[in-house]
Amino acid sequence: MLTLHYAPHTCSLASHIALEDVGAKYELRRIDFTKAQQQSADYLRINPKARVPALTTSRGILTETPAMLAFIAQSYPDARLAPLDDAFAFAELQSFNSYLCSSVHVAHAHRMRGYRWAEEQSSFDDMKRKVPQSVGACFAVIEATLLKGPWVMGETYTVADPYLFTLAQWLEADGVDIARLPRVIEHRERMAARRNVIKAIAEELAE
Amino acid sequence: MLTLHYAPHTCSLASHIALEDVGAKYELRRIDFTKAQQQSADYLRINPKARVPALTTSRGILTETPAMLAFIAQSYPDARLAPLDDAFAFAELQSFNSYLCSSVHVAHAHRMRGYRWAEEQSSFDDMKRKVPQSVGACFAVIEATLLKGPWVMGETYTVADPYLFTLAQWLEADGVDIARLPRVIEHRERMAARRNVIKAIAEELAE
Repeated sequence: MLTLHYAPHTCSLASHIALEDVGAKYELRRIDFTKAQQQSADYLRINPKARVPALTTSRGILTETPAMLAFIAQSYPDARLAPLDDAFAFAELQSFNSYLCSSVHVAHAHRMRGYRWAEEQSSFDDMKRKVPQSVGACFAVIEATLLKGPWVMGETYTVADPYLFTLAQWLEADGVDIARLPRVIEHRERMAARRNVIKAIAEELAE
Repeated sequence: MLTLHYAPHTCSLASHIALEDVGAKYELRRIDFTKAQQQSADYLRINPKARVPALTTSRGILTETPAMLAFIAQSYPDARLAPLDDAFAFAELQSFNSYLCSSVHVAHAHRMRGYRWAEEQSSFDDMKRKVPQSVGACFAVIEATLLKGPWVMGETYTVADPYLFTLAQWLEADGVDIARLPRVIEHRERMAARRNVIKAIAEELAE
């Protein structure tokens, strides 16, 4: 049995949607950030990095969204959520997901979690002011070159789609002008209308 | 033919070593950061993100180290640089590489590239002061839990090893106390003695 450790409004939503997309049997376990449960001894045994998501499996525990998304796609090949028989196409998908985690999500994190990389309130304020520009620049690259359309990888829906959707939900809060991102926003709207996306979000907000 | 676009002293070394490890035929093209070649129109056509590494292939261009490393391992399966027939083990490898790119490398980047996320000199100084702590915390997790030993994934050398080696080369410059990281340092020394590692570093410094 799979158990997804998640928190609402975080990138764990991407894996949650992917688990729905492949029809996996899984349980949800909410990690309450308002109670700092990600720092509890209990959770640190699951993920010593004190973050979500984490996926417990019969083989052990997985963390890091790009790795989890590839694992979900490979574990349920019939769902065809990644080009598993084409190393180059698979690498393109992984490149996109890696950009989301290492550049897009990181730029976003400077709005609320500057304490990871600095100590002074003036630095946090400075970082926060730059987020519209830094996140906006990342999404400009996605809009112009990386998002093939209609899905991230082109004609075929993959695990990159719930991941892009998850991070694109934060654009307005990050102060990015979405008028410059019509393709990203069209993708976001199409994702938001999918049954599995609606179900996953509702489950996370209901608990 | 593969062409690796690289710059010395950057994370492109990981892919360079992996290409040597699999016995690939490839060419090197140096991107001179001192001349801001990564910002040139010529290079932006190769990588609109203005970063290294980028790998041109007969199918197209790949960027992002974790995706490139998995691609190299999958393209040369006889070299056995990843557990390609075991989705969970492959995900563990990918999780490690994803942590390196999204947390370890990002923490490091705050020493020299704070302008990505802030504007004020006081913020850059603040970020720089925190690097020993933030990078040190990442490597403490690697030392205690992620590095299985003797190689990253245990008994078998994989593409995670050149990647860890590449980032571990920056520990002293980042002000991290390496005395607390005996397993990481032992791994780094063992990597540094490998013929392919010595060759890759020499090639990058020679051009």
